[in-house]
Amino acid sequence: MEEMPTGFRFYPTEEELVSFYLHNKLEEKRRDINRVIPLINVYQLEPWHLPKHSGDLCRGDSEQWFFFVPSQEREVQGGRPSRTTASGYWKATGSPSYVYSSDSKVIGVKKSMVFYKGKAPTGRKTKWKMNEYRAIEDFPASIPKLRHELSLCRVYVVSGSSRAFDRRPTGLEPPPREAMMNQEIYSHGGARELSESSMSGESYAGAPDLEMINGLENLLEWDKSLG
Amino acid sequence: MEEMPTGFRFYPTEEELVSFYLHNKLEEKRRDINRVIPLINVYQLEPWHLPKHSGDLCRGDSEQWFFFVPSQEREVQGGRPSRTTASGYWKATGSPSYVYSSDSKVIGVKKSMVFYKGKAPTGRKTKWKMNEYRAIEDFPASIPKLRHELSLCRVYVVSGSSRAFDRRPTGLEPPPREAMMNQEIYSHGGARELSESSMSGESYAGAPDLEMINGLENLLEWDKSLG
Repeated sequence: MEEMPTGFRFYPTEEELVSFYLHNKLEEKRRDINRVIPLINVYQLEPWHLPKHSGDLCRGDSEQWFFFVPSQEREVQGGRPSRTTASGYWKATGSPSYVYSSDSKVIGVKKSMVFYKGKAPTGRKTKWKMNEYRAIEDFPASIPKLRHELSLCRVYVVSGSSRAFDRRPTGLEPPPREAMMNQEIYSHGGARELSESSMSGESYAGAPDLEMINGLENLLEWDKSLG
Repeated sequence: MEEMPTGFRFYPTEEELVSFYLHNKLEEKRRDINRVIPLINVYQLEPWHLPKHSGDLCRGDSEQWFFFVPSQEREVQGGRPSRTTASGYWKATGSPSYVYSSDSKVIGVKKSMVFYKGKAPTGRKTKWKMNEYRAIEDFPASIPKLRHELSLCRVYVVSGSSRAFDRRPTGLEPPPREAMMNQEIYSHGGARELSESSMSGESYAGAPDLEMINGLENLLEWDKSLG
């Protein structure tokens, strides 16, 4: 595994996480897996300290981070695992769900959690979330069984934008969809002035200044070719 | 550039598309770029024939496909490009928007299109969409200028699920969120029967059969440890 070319990053499907990464780790088959997903006790660290521990092939990812998490002693013995950190706690959200293979087999179970700051049950919800995956052993077998030794966690931050793909500069909130449609930055069929009010709203702190955008007006010709 | 490890795929940011791929292509700097984004006239092919032409490092991607598109002669001369294929046409949607660098500079312009089947203006909208990117030359300069020789297109399919990450098996539509919360597949604190109705709705064609799911009931112990 080498350095990745520009734009390539770890965006696994859940099937890849369970069938490849979790299974190979459980069977201790591939040592280089640690370069992608390291083993770490995520519940001993604050969520915001986790990104710097991510695998060296995923360093620099800003959206999600993956870790193998050893089961706690108390959990192996049938107890409840401790998910409390120094500053808060992880709390389950919704119901667990299945993970499917592309041929529609159930291959794992997924649990989602949210990090709360403070003490339960009065903590404040944060934007830090987690999916915890466990593999199902020998499925389909007569008695499917969860592999409890190890889970795989995907830690992520809920951002306003749904994808990192078309993210805007930090602090530059996208205007509401309605405003987007009506704004005059690109006027159809002419070089109208950019409406200042459409760009200087409070939620638009950090926006490129108007002069810069006015300088782009001659790019409007491109717009004429709109189908 | 080698074969990618499992789970690594081309998920570029718009900044990477414009600043690295489009600029390097315009300057003919790196030949191996074709292995990621090949040059092809996307407007001469039906959208569903495009995926098989994607770069060999992106082969197998099922969500989005990237191409460099040479400008048409008529377009270079200031006319409207033809975006009509044998079975339909690409039509612009919304207004063009800017592409920003991570330090909040405007580096490109993005136009979004939807493919319609049939003849304009009465075609039927399909789930095939496209973002077309053009680079801004020498920005910030006194007179920013769009590079018209070449655009970079991201072709993608709008699916019900927002991400390929947690996609379900084909034909297996996720139940509405409400139902998800109430379903009895994982009962809290006991091994209640799986409610048949929750899994056999019409929209749930192709779901794993009930016997398979009932076999998973002993996995519920895991659920007890929910925080």
